[in-house]
Amino acid sequence: MSHFMAELLGTALLILLGDGVVAGVLLSKSKAQNSGHIVITWGWALAVGISAYIFGPISGGHFNPAVTLGFAAIGKFAWADVPMYIIAQMIGAILGATLVWLHYLPHWAETKDKGLKLGVFCTAPAIRNTPANFISEFIGTFVLVFGILGVGNTKMADGFGPFVVALIILVIGLSLGGTTGYAINPARDLGPRIAHAILPIAGKGDSDWKYAWIPVIAPICGGIVAALTFVAVF
Amino acid sequence: MSHFMAELLGTALLILLGDGVVAGVLLSKSKAQNSGHIVITWGWALAVGISAYIFGPISGGHFNPAVTLGFAAIGKFAWADVPMYIIAQMIGAILGATLVWLHYLPHWAETKDKGLKLGVFCTAPAIRNTPANFISEFIGTFVLVFGILGVGNTKMADGFGPFVVALIILVIGLSLGGTTGYAINPARDLGPRIAHAILPIAGKGDSDWKYAWIPVIAPICGGIVAALTFVAVF
Amino acid sequence: MSHFMAELLGTALLILLGDGVVAGVLLSKSKAQNSGHIVITWGWALAVGISAYIFGPISGGHFNPAVTLGFAAIGKFAWADVPMYIIAQMIGAILGATLVWLHYLPHWAETKDKGLKLGVFCTAPAIRNTPANFISEFIGTFVLVFGILGVGNTKMADGFGPFVVALIILVIGLSLGGTTGYAINPARDLGPRIAHAILPIAGKGDSDWKYAWIPVIAPICGGIVAALTFVAVF
Amino acid sequence: MSHFMAELLGTALLILLGDGVVAGVLLSKSKAQNSGHIVITWGWALAVGISAYIFGPISGGHFNPAVTLGFAAIGKFAWADVPMYIIAQMIGAILGATLVWLHYLPHWAETKDKGLKLGVFCTAPAIRNTPANFISEFIGTFVLVFGILGVGNTKMADGFGPFVVALIILVIGLSLGGTTGYAINPARDLGPRIAHAILPIAGKGDSDWKYAWIPVIAPICGGIVAALTFVAVF
Repeated sequence: MSHFMAELLGTALLILLGDGVVAGVLLSKSKAQNSGHIVITWGWALAVGISAYIFGPISGGHFNPAVTLGFAAIGKFAWADVPMYIIAQMIGAILGATLVWLHYLPHWAETKDKGLKLGVFCTAPAIRNTPANFISEFIGTFVLVFGILGVGNTKMADGFGPFVVALIILVIGLSLGGTTGYAINPARDLGPRIAHAILPIAGKGDSDWKYAWIPVIAPICGGIVAALTFVAVF
Repeated sequence: MSHFMAELLGTALLILLGDGVVAGVLLSKSKAQNSGHIVITWGWALAVGISAYIFGPISGGHFNPAVTLGFAAIGKFAWADVPMYIIAQMIGAILGATLVWLHYLPHWAETKDKGLKLGVFCTAPAIRNTPANFISEFIGTFVLVFGILGVGNTKMADGFGPFVVALIILVIGLSLGGTTGYAINPARDLGPRIAHAILPIAGKGDSDWKYAWIPVIAPICGGIVAALTFVAVF
Repeated sequence: MSHFMAELLGTALLILLGDGVVAGVLLSKSKAQNSGHIVITWGWALAVGISAYIFGPISGGHFNPAVTLGFAAIGKFAWADVPMYIIAQMIGAILGATLVWLHYLPHWAETKDKGLKLGVFCTAPAIRNTPANFISEFIGTFVLVFGILGVGNTKMADGFGPFVVALIILVIGLSLGGTTGYAINPARDLGPRIAHAILPIAGKGDSDWKYAWIPVIAPICGGIVAALTFVAVF
Repeated sequence: MSHFMAELLGTALLILLGDGVVAGVLLSKSKAQNSGHIVITWGWALAVGISAYIFGPISGGHFNPAVTLGFAAIGKFAWADVPMYIIAQMIGAILGATLVWLHYLPHWAETKDKGLKLGVFCTAPAIRNTPANFISEFIGTFVLVFGILGVGNTKMADGFGPFVVALIILVIGLSLGGTTGYAINPARDLGPRIAHAILPIAGKGDSDWKYAWIPVIAPICGGIVAALTFVAVF
């Protein structure tokens, strides 16, 4: 498998499991309905971790343009591969979101709230406030990329690294997710938002395009600044 | 111990702990009643993980015909051993479910809802819809078998592998369990369903045989397709 | 430090953290009040795990007469040391329970329900039924001792073993704790029950001595049978 | 990076993620509002763990004057570096708390309860009782410092140690956090309390200075006594 394909499939699995846990908690009649923030945060954490175990050895396991761009900014990843990686991540995210739609197929019609249905696919801020939402996504992604680079300071036994990365995602969700829902990944947010717009989801509403730029631009800024900061301080 | 016996006892322990956690959450007067999806998913995850630590070194730790058939389909397991493994898994599952019945003995009469009592033993869909339920079990088992094979891409320190497999079960439960209750294992569903039919459970209802084929056939299909896909793409 | 002293202090820490988490969930005005089964089970799991990390290298980290007797029954532990180990475990448990009383000092008067106050110290069955309660404690301790011996089948990287033992405790609590509250350890139950009887706990009730023999005798039987079974089958 | 700077930045990250999880659970309109003790305890545990992975290799990863003083008391850390470490920890804690204020910026005005807003920054006792609160913080910090030293008795594979330290924080939160909210760290409590006093937090109340000395003095006493005890008994 090429590293582009690994990045595409890894992102698809990430979104299947990540948007999947949100579907489980938000959609009506789901057995996991209203099971809370601890379920959502562990779900996303392991969505990243398991995808990294499977596809990381081939692609590096970015699954996230903010990571790819951050790594490129400090010479850890070739700029020439950046466009294809981001394309792979976007296609993978749309594919994964489509699988979530399929997996929860009869639950869409049962769920009356259009906002909840959109919330399965992409993030929405708890309080709509452009600068504050931007700052939240910037900080969250800063911690993500600084954290991924930073835990490399500690030597890890074989196979323990992806688990620690999962723990980074977990703590970001627990500690910083309350404001904007921690997109911290442009592909994770924009890909499924596109899927939401395209797919024939029963009783769906609009895809909230006016908010869509924040979970794209803020994570990219946060990721690049984090990588540059990491190199500057260590 | 023969690897057949290890597979039998491992599946018995898996079901004792897996159906056990469902009993704890569903049965009346249980100290864990209504403790939620996070309890159920961690319980099943560690049911698999601990069984794998104990019996995996002898039998490989399938405990699941979908895994056995998937591995056989790609030459990772001898077809000649498949029938005995599946028989061992089925006997083990019935034995484990019997132990759950025994462990929670006074709670059955206290629990009025016949559906909850059946739900301790085997899965039922949140929304009854044959194609959708089939797809859900197919996807869940695909992720399971693809995941077990895939995390082998990452070299693991001694003893870390079964924990990662437990995390795969955990994330499947968190992210994909909301629809059909993630049987993802024909023995896990059919064995305890047979136990439910046979055991003198106080105030039990029927065993919902019309649904029983889905959590048998869909996981087998999902597991085999996952294994073939894994070989095709990696 | 002698291995007797390590066993005493390790059991004290186990009970401080184990009974401590129950106090946090049950006592009035606690910040953790009603935080549920997931909190209790993780608390007990890590109470064992952390105590094992600290004291295990010296004493073997039993902290439990059922483990000590099970190991002695199969020649893994010297019978000559059994009496002193059990005495150390009992003294440690009483000491740990006393620290829990001290730690939550102003919360006892605020908690009106005498049964909740007793429940911090020792277990009580969800449904009082002597044979069923005995069976539950037998099965739980069987899984504990069989599990501790059994996970030794898997080679572990340095320092991973105590974590896996914590996961065994976790899954027993999640899956088998709903009936009798998983004492699975005579010292864990009898020691704090003695502390409850002795300490000047504000507004305490009786110490439920008629139930006290079950979480002593059943775990001892379960532990010894588990160890003998382990040797017989592997 | 100097070890002072690592200690400063590590403490900032610790407080961003630690106070962040409290903000998520307490502040109005947060997506994590009322998600409970399991969220708070995992958040703080991983706040410590991830900071230790990143900054521990440089500074030792104290992030806590009680740890620094405890280590100095037994000759594990140079007294000459103690003042600068404590200054770095305090500045880092104020910085981290400021980032939490920024991250949750629109949520402060939405939260009417002044006590909840203060509770994001620093601890308050469940029941105000000076000797009892002192004892609780003393015991909690004793377990922390004795635990950090004690788990060193078990040889750990590379990279597993910080995870075990996170588990120590987790179990302290689960088991001993119900009384005073487990400050167990003077910098963690005093630094954010100063930030609360200084920052223009919408609708804030007073900073409860009369309680502020307990989570400073009691952890220092507990940490030093724990370290001395550790050396005395092992």
